[in-house]
Amino acid sequence: MEQAFLQFLANQTTSLAAGSVGIGDDAAMLSWGAEQKLVVCTDLISDETDFLLHEVTPQQIGRKALAINLSDIAAMACEPVGALLTLLLPQGESSLDLAKGIYEGAAELAESYGCPIIGGDTNSWPGKVAVSVTVLGRCPGPQPLLRQGAQPGDAIAVTGKLGGSILGHHLSFEPRVREALELHQNFHLNAGMDISDGISIDLPRLCQQSRVGAEIDARLLPISDAAHQRSEKTGKPAWWHALNDGEDFELLFTLPAEQMDRLATQWTESVPITKIGTVREASPLMLIDLEGTRQPLLPEGFSHQ
Amino acid sequence: MEQAFLQFLANQTTSLAAGSVGIGDDAAMLSWGAEQKLVVCTDLISDETDFLLHEVTPQQIGRKALAINLSDIAAMACEPVGALLTLLLPQGESSLDLAKGIYEGAAELAESYGCPIIGGDTNSWPGKVAVSVTVLGRCPGPQPLLRQGAQPGDAIAVTGKLGGSILGHHLSFEPRVREALELHQNFHLNAGMDISDGISIDLPRLCQQSRVGAEIDARLLPISDAAHQRSEKTGKPAWWHALNDGEDFELLFTLPAEQMDRLATQWTESVPITKIGTVREASPLMLIDLEGTRQPLLPEGFSHQ
Repeated sequence: MEQAFLQFLANQTTSLAAGSVGIGDDAAMLSWGAEQKLVVCTDLISDETDFLLHEVTPQQIGRKALAINLSDIAAMACEPVGALLTLLLPQGESSLDLAKGIYEGAAELAESYGCPIIGGDTNSWPGKVAVSVTVLGRCPGPQPLLRQGAQPGDAIAVTGKLGGSILGHHLSFEPRVREALELHQNFHLNAGMDISDGISIDLPRLCQQSRVGAEIDARLLPISDAAHQRSEKTGKPAWWHALNDGEDFELLFTLPAEQMDRLATQWTESVPITKIGTVREASPLMLIDLEGTRQPLLPEGFSHQ
Repeated sequence: MEQAFLQFLANQTTSLAAGSVGIGDDAAMLSWGAEQKLVVCTDLISDETDFLLHEVTPQQIGRKALAINLSDIAAMACEPVGALLTLLLPQGESSLDLAKGIYEGAAELAESYGCPIIGGDTNSWPGKVAVSVTVLGRCPGPQPLLRQGAQPGDAIAVTGKLGGSILGHHLSFEPRVREALELHQNFHLNAGMDISDGISIDLPRLCQQSRVGAEIDARLLPISDAAHQRSEKTGKPAWWHALNDGEDFELLFTLPAEQMDRLATQWTESVPITKIGTVREASPLMLIDLEGTRQPLLPEGFSHQ
């Protein structure tokens, strides 16, 4: 349903000011004043879809609701400046502790990213809990990082390690705000996004916006310990989990080959950067498997259909 | 629960930049660049609390979700510049038509207020429908209109006619964006807000922020036809409905007495402006009833507790 609705939205005409970016990227962008660009993103999480209320703390819910939005701001290589926190809570006095806990979890993360909670809305209803967050960001340079712009020949790279997020990373990940700012300022990235549904689903989105193809080498994928753990349970290879599991919230970006070489030698942050493939001319996306065989890259990850 | 949570929030320390306004007004404000001020507000509506899905069209849901946010931007006397539309929908293919209808209702209103829908988030879950909207606005002057600033001796005035919104106005009202801009630019308003829970609940909020008291004259209240209709059903006086019914989404504002006099002679817009009372020194809020007797003004309206 969600993909069909997004298709419907893509066909709507919206009159945006010149230089603005609307639906289709990780955040929307508005020109603001003479020199500054404003980006804004919003993401909602809900019980039974994005978390199970009885398996998480309220603080974890609040943290995740903000963190996925900060990850969208990072995907644009922008600085978060303020957040709005909207709560939809079950009726009854017991929701007060739930509300406080969600706020606390969000506020703690907000503080560490210099992104104060400046407003929101609180509602109770005869239903389950959902949390909607909006984050405003500031673009420090002339242009934010977008999904469009990838060039054939670009290296494709990711931050961190991939896969197995469901084992805990999806509740505790650090949005790559600082890394994105440093990468975009120092290494001339051509395109980027965050990995929310898994590379096999997200990379095609970037390629579609950039009108290019891509080739991913499974032998290069940075595989998390959690992906190995998942592999033992599922019987699928660990690289399969790195390629297809959702909610890594790492950065996926492309940059010219020589910039990638320079990045490989000059990157000093603790979060690793790994080249995982190459941008190609527009064509079906390909995967090089462990035996070096080229095969189509299929979107086997989890998508919010 | 919601009031208790707002009290909790009021006690949290949030580090806002100088000149910014956080939780407590109709919208939050951020300084942006040298000269521009950005305001942002968010409001959520949900099935069974703010509408009944089987009694409204999807278009009406989308329209209302945006309109209440535009009313918050009007409450700050700002210009809306863009909206984010987040949908939480029941699982299943039938939600696609619901999603499209909600979008269409919001988009039509967005167009007429020059406030394009620039982003959002779409989610399905095993629950009922809720719609969360965020609107960004631009402050055209040096300061937005705030709840603080009312002065003893100020006239208290409202736009439009009041009461009985539940009979239909809450789905079809026009947010007072243009009126607020014109009022704030030409008549030196000291404080203002929009009426969402009814004057008897909202006026105390303005008075608390401004640290003043107030006196409302029931004989002056502009009473809507719908309030008279409600009165026939409930047996309560029509002025009671004008004072206590929620969701009028009219402007409530204060201004110096001489400005009110000038406004009374110079206001040429079709939406009426009516003086309904006077700001007093800090004290319990008072109501002058139809017999001219002063009595305490009690918060008898509907509040989202």
